[in-house]
Amino acid sequence: MDFRVTILGSGAASPSRGRNQTSQVVTSGNNCFLVDCGEAAQIQLKKYKIKLSRIDHIFISHLHGDHYLGLMGLISTMHLARRERLLTIFGPRGLDEIITVQLKHSHLKLHYPIKFVSTSQDGKRLLLDDKYLNIYSFPLKHRIPCTGFSFEEKPRMRNLIKEKIQSNKLGVDAILSLRNGLDYVNDEGNVTYRVEEYTYPPSLPRKYAFCSDTLYDEDIIPYIRDSSLLYHEATFMNRDEIRAAETCHSTAAQAATIARSAGAKQLLLGHYSSRYVDLYPLLEEAKAIFEPSILSEEGATYWME
Amino acid sequence: MDFRVTILGSGAASPSRGRNQTSQVVTSGNNCFLVDCGEAAQIQLKKYKIKLSRIDHIFISHLHGDHYLGLMGLISTMHLARRERLLTIFGPRGLDEIITVQLKHSHLKLHYPIKFVSTSQDGKRLLLDDKYLNIYSFPLKHRIPCTGFSFEEKPRMRNLIKEKIQSNKLGVDAILSLRNGLDYVNDEGNVTYRVEEYTYPPSLPRKYAFCSDTLYDEDIIPYIRDSSLLYHEATFMNRDEIRAAETCHSTAAQAATIARSAGAKQLLLGHYSSRYVDLYPLLEEAKAIFEPSILSEEGATYWME
Repeated sequence: MDFRVTILGSGAASPSRGRNQTSQVVTSGNNCFLVDCGEAAQIQLKKYKIKLSRIDHIFISHLHGDHYLGLMGLISTMHLARRERLLTIFGPRGLDEIITVQLKHSHLKLHYPIKFVSTSQDGKRLLLDDKYLNIYSFPLKHRIPCTGFSFEEKPRMRNLIKEKIQSNKLGVDAILSLRNGLDYVNDEGNVTYRVEEYTYPPSLPRKYAFCSDTLYDEDIIPYIRDSSLLYHEATFMNRDEIRAAETCHSTAAQAATIARSAGAKQLLLGHYSSRYVDLYPLLEEAKAIFEPSILSEEGATYWME
Repeated sequence: MDFRVTILGSGAASPSRGRNQTSQVVTSGNNCFLVDCGEAAQIQLKKYKIKLSRIDHIFISHLHGDHYLGLMGLISTMHLARRERLLTIFGPRGLDEIITVQLKHSHLKLHYPIKFVSTSQDGKRLLLDDKYLNIYSFPLKHRIPCTGFSFEEKPRMRNLIKEKIQSNKLGVDAILSLRNGLDYVNDEGNVTYRVEEYTYPPSLPRKYAFCSDTLYDEDIIPYIRDSSLLYHEATFMNRDEIRAAETCHSTAAQAATIARSAGAKQLLLGHYSSRYVDLYPLLEEAKAIFEPSILSEEGATYWME
């Protein structure tokens, strides 16, 4: 099953050096989940040919402008496209007021309903039980209430050993039972087909964890443990570590330390300060601690493996 | 004196076809005035190398998102750039609440003060008495409260006939008096230098009028009369005239009719619907009625003449 993330913005705070503000699209099968929505996210979506109509759920980490200011434009464009389907927005309390006030003053009566679900700083919370994924929020430590999100694949069904299934002409009921890990029992109560004989185990469920703005915080490790891909902000380089602490942000090396401790497979860096033109030295600082670190690049897609 | 407008966005409603939402910068001498501020206006300002630090006044015509959604990002970026100078924002009542609610939820305490001045639908109002310009608002008819803005050059001083000034060795007092159109009277009360002999008249004051979103409305003519350059929205072509009326917008031909009736020197078209790929047929419809019509193009600058 397709499980990937496309980067719409990789910059911090204000757009500069051609970098846009934080926004990403996580794709699972046919569903797209928008994660943060900095200014001009809708322009980036158009640029990278991701249809608004595929987005039914938006996740906002916190209410600094560079993470949500593109939301009203997106809501308005969905209205102009005559959307009728429910849009669900997960985000900190206050985001609903920001949306409501703007709808009021623009006299905008949307063609479609919006459901707002407020996130919480209180531990790991299940936000959405989707077809292939469970999506959770977890608390991050930043200057204002902020959460990360984890997209956790549901356990997959066991894989069939095709030759054995075909030669024994198994029925649909038996196949379904075996794929779900249950020996097949016939009407007389006898075990006819054993799981171990007819199937092999599925690959491990994959996990994408998104840590938007956060200071270096080992408390997040339980939430992001064993991520297939961990996105962790890396606003600063080592030489600006004090500035990182002052502003509740992280360095690339700190992101790498967290990735290593959490047993992530890969680390995706982003939210780069505009003070850095060349990002390779920042990447090098991460790689020195956690080799499978990569720079997020706008328009690029990263698959969960 | 330098008096011009640079287009940051020429599209309507939602950004598409590479067109951004309405935003313009009017420059007069060293001062820049931002007129409307669609999403991503700050990105456009950066692209066209217009410094935020030159903007002290922002004029918002109405509270449809495509005319103001870039404002919060701009305010935030000015804060990050450690602006300390006052920023004055002119706009419809409600814009102050939109800004205040977002500052509250982002816990943003700006380094600089913002003064909000609400515009009114009640006739022509002087908003700003600037060094070279008087800036007014005037009512437009749209689906929600909306104003246009006119930037009217103050009467200029008379031009000196240099040869006569030099050969007669006129003093500073005499020159100032003559430039202001007053005969110079010496200490004995005698007229020493006559205005007509030593000066010739200044060129007529120039005027830029901005009509953002409006239906075809002849009532605006008194406000925009004799504009050196008239910007008038031209969302639709003739074939979509009914749609224009339904949505309180104008066709290019209607904009041209208004320009002709108002005695404008030039008409600048904009706010093009995304349904049109090629804009030349739209321009042709305007030109058929008012020949000096031009298409506004993003990044282009138009001088008042």
